[in-house]
Amino acid sequence: MKFGGTSVGTIERIKAVADQVKAVVDAGHQVAVVVSAMSGTTNQLVQWTREAGAMHDAREYDVVVSSGEQVTVGLLAIALQNIGVEARSWLGWQVAMHTDNIHGGARIESIDTEAMLARLEQGQVAVMAGFQGVAEDNRITTLGRGGSDTSAVALAAALGADRCDIYTDVDGVYTTDPRIVPKATKLDKITFEEMLELASNGAKVLQTRSVAMAMRHGVKLQVLSSFEDLPGTMVVNEDEIMEKNSVSGIAYSVDEAKVTLVGLDDKPGVAANVFSTLADNNVNVDMIVQTAASAPGKTDITFSVNGAELDRASTVLQGIKDELNYNDLLTSEDVCKVSVVGMAMRSQPGVARTMFSTLAEKGINIEVISTSEIKISVLIGREYTELAVRSLHTAFGLDSES
Amino acid sequence: MKFGGTSVGTIERIKAVADQVKAVVDAGHQVAVVVSAMSGTTNQLVQWTREAGAMHDAREYDVVVSSGEQVTVGLLAIALQNIGVEARSWLGWQVAMHTDNIHGGARIESIDTEAMLARLEQGQVAVMAGFQGVAEDNRITTLGRGGSDTSAVALAAALGADRCDIYTDVDGVYTTDPRIVPKATKLDKITFEEMLELASNGAKVLQTRSVAMAMRHGVKLQVLSSFEDLPGTMVVNEDEIMEKNSVSGIAYSVDEAKVTLVGLDDKPGVAANVFSTLADNNVNVDMIVQTAASAPGKTDITFSVNGAELDRASTVLQGIKDELNYNDLLTSEDVCKVSVVGMAMRSQPGVARTMFSTLAEKGINIEVISTSEIKISVLIGREYTELAVRSLHTAFGLDSES
Repeated sequence: MKFGGTSVGTIERIKAVADQVKAVVDAGHQVAVVVSAMSGTTNQLVQWTREAGAMHDAREYDVVVSSGEQVTVGLLAIALQNIGVEARSWLGWQVAMHTDNIHGGARIESIDTEAMLARLEQGQVAVMAGFQGVAEDNRITTLGRGGSDTSAVALAAALGADRCDIYTDVDGVYTTDPRIVPKATKLDKITFEEMLELASNGAKVLQTRSVAMAMRHGVKLQVLSSFEDLPGTMVVNEDEIMEKNSVSGIAYSVDEAKVTLVGLDDKPGVAANVFSTLADNNVNVDMIVQTAASAPGKTDITFSVNGAELDRASTVLQGIKDELNYNDLLTSEDVCKVSVVGMAMRSQPGVARTMFSTLAEKGINIEVISTSEIKISVLIGREYTELAVRSLHTAFGLDSES
Repeated sequence: MKFGGTSVGTIERIKAVADQVKAVVDAGHQVAVVVSAMSGTTNQLVQWTREAGAMHDAREYDVVVSSGEQVTVGLLAIALQNIGVEARSWLGWQVAMHTDNIHGGARIESIDTEAMLARLEQGQVAVMAGFQGVAEDNRITTLGRGGSDTSAVALAAALGADRCDIYTDVDGVYTTDPRIVPKATKLDKITFEEMLELASNGAKVLQTRSVAMAMRHGVKLQVLSSFEDLPGTMVVNEDEIMEKNSVSGIAYSVDEAKVTLVGLDDKPGVAANVFSTLADNNVNVDMIVQTAASAPGKTDITFSVNGAELDRASTVLQGIKDELNYNDLLTSEDVCKVSVVGMAMRSQPGVARTMFSTLAEKGINIEVISTSEIKISVLIGREYTELAVRSLHTAFGLDSES
């Protein structure tokens, strides 16, 4: 059972979580719980590390920010004991949750489960701090923002858990964001692959890394509400879903930026030079389109990056302007990526046609397109976000009937 | 260098502490810093553990409250790095600061200093979390409130430090509390024994345990201001002080309660029964007086305990009422203990006489008296606290001339 920051945001909420855990224990299950920091805490701690020093050494950043989860595991263990449930807290170094030493964004390497398993067998609930681990040199690491989902899935995999339930402030995975499409419907089941595409294209319900890890290790994942006692959405293998719409869900992300290099020489190796230089500087390029420029022998390249990486991308490209011999570098953050996702897309042609014609009917210009086997993404002007998502939701038959 | 909660209460203060540490490093010293949690943090965390559950398992309490120091060590390390001082944080388990497993009030057993010494040799500042350690089973322990002073002294002893400087919100040890006696004077030096008596009788400037530990290990202790660059008070061996007043300082504590057992049988073994039962129930009795009661063959016993232990003391004594066969149990929290302390008291008689006559002149009734070789304490009505302290300060010639 994994509970996020909102679910443990107050002492009252922590006690409510303890009650939810007790219900599962009383039903005869062995339970490990993973918790985040109280909502707001991590932001405050991050803010302090910035104020303390512009350099903010990632090793010390990890020491500071990991303290938030330390508070919630102790409090939840106390709240459980208080209602008669045996429990103890486990910090990353106590488990131990071994990671590499990439502080601030560490990757889990292995988890020692022997001691925890022995205590689970005795009926004790394990309350583990999410988001944190320990590197080889005994320093605390953190997994990067949202890492608690990943902690939970990794622990579930290591323990051989029957299921990993992610309790959150929504009651499941929806066909799209219900805040902009009131007719969005909750999915009973979704495949790992679809969930991965939705998460990596802007759906906030699960962290992408955690879905990828669950898929890799075959961990059955359930997303459900920590506020209401309702069934959630199961993330499962494809063979566990009988019938599918061509499109399962629509994701959007406004956290994108567009970069255009105007008037590059149209010769082999230019694009390779652009993208390998960006990759060397840790800029992740998402969507790419290359078009003929007006001048002969010239070409334009447009691509999208995460908004947070736009400044770095610009600096890198300005640094190789002479080498690339381009005329102009244009950037814009006024864009949105909209993605339609569905396993059945592979066998049902026409999804692209429906998508493009729907957007065209609404007068929405598509700036860049990218596709995978089960996904089509388009980059559009940001002001069209809601219009695009709503029209596509209707066009693919996802609107609820009520 | 040890900095308390007020000294690291904000990011600005943490940066100021970094500057103070840098000055000492620049002067050519190897420095280990011990810090408390930001002021207010520990109280908030303690409050949460209480709200989470009445039981609040001391092991989990320690997990929660030790997080406060984790935040400040990371932030101070960042602030130091930011001004060009190499630094790293050390949590209790990383040092390791080994303690027994009395959670919430652990005692330090040993400190591994090899790794820290190697880094100090390389010029790196060690920033250690005060108040916390680790027990044999790898669980976090805390040393009890105010334990950061003890952490600092223990680390200084283990490292063989030349000095342990305790930076605080006052600029030294005064002859008494300047808030109630404006003519109190700052002492340049004070002996360990006197400091121990003052601390254990209500002076808040240093934690009693830390003074006892400094005395035992011969750690030179200095109390000084973290806000002003002024010499503080050195706590030293007796032979380092040439001349002494008969009384060095006056302490008071309103954190006392008085208990009277009325009409006990006046026979051998009764007092032993009372105090051994209290000791078995972890009630620390401080001052004791036994007086003849009005009825023949009866006696009264009056003693003082810490105010926080009064309820426990009452419950224990009510539980053995039949056995003790007393008439009445009277309690009062409306008392104050005032103590005069001085090494020279041993060779200069008349201190008791001056003390009692001064109080008598002011019409202050003495309820209980206790003495040690270098201290006389009296229990008086709480409303006389300021009057008694001021009169004694004058009577023993401690008033400053300005």
